Amino acid sequence: MTVATWKDPAVREGYARIAETGPFVYGLTNYIAANLSANVLLAAGAGPAIGAASDWTTTFPAGASAVWINTASLMSSDEESLRTVARTAHEAGTPWVLDPVAVGAGAAAYDDFVRSLLEFRPAVIRGNASELIALAGGEATGKGVETTVNSADAVAAVSDFAARIGAVVAVSGPVDYISDGHRTVEVPGGDVRLTRVTGAGCALGSLTAAAVFATGDALQGAVVAHAAYAEAAERAGARTKGTGAFAVALVDELSLLNDTDESN
Amino acid sequence: MTVATWKDPAVREGYARIAETGPFVYGLTNYIAANLSANVLLAAGAGPAIGAASDWTTTFPAGASAVWINTASLMSSDEESLRTVARTAHEAGTPWVLDPVAVGAGAAAYDDFVRSLLEFRPAVIRGNASELIALAGGEATGKGVETTVNSADAVAAVSDFAARIGAVVAVSGPVDYISDGHRTVEVPGGDVRLTRVTGAGCALGSLTAAAVFATGDALQGAVVAHAAYAEAAERAGARTKGTGAFAVALVDELSLLNDTDESN
Amino acid sequence: MTVATWKDPAVREGYARIAETGPFVYGLTNYIAANLSANVLLAAGAGPAIGAASDWTTTFPAGASAVWINTASLMSSDEESLRTVARTAHEAGTPWVLDPVAVGAGAAAYDDFVRSLLEFRPAVIRGNASELIALAGGEATGKGVETTVNSADAVAAVSDFAARIGAVVAVSGPVDYISDGHRTVEVPGGDVRLTRVTGAGCALGSLTAAAVFATGDALQGAVVAHAAYAEAAERAGARTKGTGAFAVALVDELSLLNDTDESN
Repeated sequence: MTVATWKDPAVREGYARIAETGPFVYGLTNYIAANLSANVLLAAGAGPAIGAASDWTTTFPAGASAVWINTASLMSSDEESLRTVARTAHEAGTPWVLDPVAVGAGAAAYDDFVRSLLEFRPAVIRGNASELIALAGGEATGKGVETTVNSADAVAAVSDFAARIGAVVAVSGPVDYISDGHRTVEVPGGDVRLTRVTGAGCALGSLTAAAVFATGDALQGAVVAHAAYAEAAERAGARTKGTGAFAVALVDELSLLNDTDESN
Repeated sequence: MTVATWKDPAVREGYARIAETGPFVYGLTNYIAANLSANVLLAAGAGPAIGAASDWTTTFPAGASAVWINTASLMSSDEESLRTVARTAHEAGTPWVLDPVAVGAGAAAYDDFVRSLLEFRPAVIRGNASELIALAGGEATGKGVETTVNSADAVAAVSDFAARIGAVVAVSGPVDYISDGHRTVEVPGGDVRLTRVTGAGCALGSLTAAAVFATGDALQGAVVAHAAYAEAAERAGARTKGTGAFAVALVDELSLLNDTDESN
Repeated sequence: MTVATWKDPAVREGYARIAETGPFVYGLTNYIAANLSANVLLAAGAGPAIGAASDWTTTFPAGASAVWINTASLMSSDEESLRTVARTAHEAGTPWVLDPVAVGAGAAAYDDFVRSLLEFRPAVIRGNASELIALAGGEATGKGVETTVNSADAVAAVSDFAARIGAVVAVSGPVDYISDGHRTVEVPGGDVRLTRVTGAGCALGSLTAAAVFATGDALQGAVVAHAAYAEAAERAGARTKGTGAFAVALVDELSLLNDTDESN
């Protein structure tokens, strides 16, 4: 298994390409994570727009560089809006990222709806181990939006799922694993406080969309986003104690990554 | 009247129990306060999920350790969703906290709906003085989401209301008062900037839900949450000047409270 | 063209009047910007309430000191709610601010709806150059919520538009320009990171509503809000590096502006 970190020139170059290309990234996400997701995209140099306002759902996914859908956006948008965004992105050839938050946590109708979006062929699916195992058809073990399974125990399931559906699948955890079914890349690092900042995983989904556009490749884009996020989290973790300051520092570090070299 | 603060071992032990038990706390809240509420719960060691997405409303309240409903969540969810969550929690025996934000501020239909939720027997009701006096049937004096009455002037009304409806009622203010109708506990401290951070009161409602589960008692849970919040606010206030840094520091201090003893 | 900055006593006095009068400011905004907007208002000394919950839309605009509507609030509220708030404010004589975010970015039905709100005579319209040119009937050049036109290139269009519709129009950019069609005021300063903090423009719309009430004048209110914001952004920029810390410091500085004189 390949290991990727911020020390790899290809990761740093891919991340820098986000600011260089300034992609317009459109998303539907839950209102808990919307602010952080937009700020993460802005920190990286992308231009976000969020939400199912009027005919944004039928126009923005076609004009955007990339799209992400966090299915907990059902808390303020209807199922048809999510399907419209996914369908429009798919038909326009805009790559999109699916974040199936809380799938497998006991809400069967929700789970079914999330699975129905696979029809529109996401370029990347990202989530925690419980979510991805459940989405792949395995046992449902989620506890709300939290996982009860370690990412390392999901690697085989993630790789199989990626091969079966023809998408890149990325599982977040103490170590992140990203697979297209043929190759699996391991991204170590990060900070445990990422699990104690609401929406930190969701925001990584939005950053992944930007990086897929910037690199022109779903696997490499997912790797770039996860490795940059891990690096920013480590830097943020090194200079903060509590979870509040860590969240602020995470955005800070993402906005400063391009100004530093790997030895910093 | 009993006084409770962070110096009391029972308060510190109750707060530590949140992280030890890691409760899954489900809530409906307004999108202004959702992010802070989730981060407050994560800081304390609970696992939040928020929002009326699909069948979360009928499943999560039954599986959750505790529930909270902030009635301003009507800004993105319909009345039936709020009633479903309250009913499901009540029937499953999951304790739930009602936060009747802005009741008594001049919106009669809203006020009537908020009162209708009392049928589902919340374990705790928390709000400011204007809100609780209005909810108890007294004069409506709210100015938007702000109170025009001091908490100390609401103590008798709060105690009477608690006795009448068989719930714990907690009024926030310069001093917080928490009553089950028989006993009333006074929680001093905090920081005036709590009134200048949006959603700070709403987030206290979510923390109260977690503490009710962790302590197994509505009165003690409400006391623990309010006393821990007051302590974190004092620590945050001592090291910040503006309201932006204060809000970040509040979450920080909540995430660090268990690492410190009362002499810090 | 007149230039206005924080150094002008009238600007400082106008800003101080917000805290002195403590206006209740009611708004509909998108859930990405709602938290920051409320915190900006609280930092300035206003009391915000946000959202189309139940009959808040028909009651709060009449009781409020001022109102703002960010049309991206369509992502969680329906068109009728926005129209009701605008109509109620108009009929009650409550001044209101229109923030036509993302108009002209390619969503025709959305654009038409935004224009339809002009019927209810906003006191101030604020946006970026792409938005205001599109709203005035010019070319649509927006890229999601971002502008592709510099504010300086929109001055003539903004002034003409203001004269034609009888409202104050304020365009944000490296320099802000604010016009009632007869006079145009230039507000320099600020910090480029304002474009990298989500909702920073939206929050300026809410602050403008508070300042219009506090000064009793649409043009002067808009100038006060923009000049205070620019000053707070400069102070925040001087003591932070990344975009995360900048956002926190912006709110901080707004909450501290009244404690300082112009030489700070």
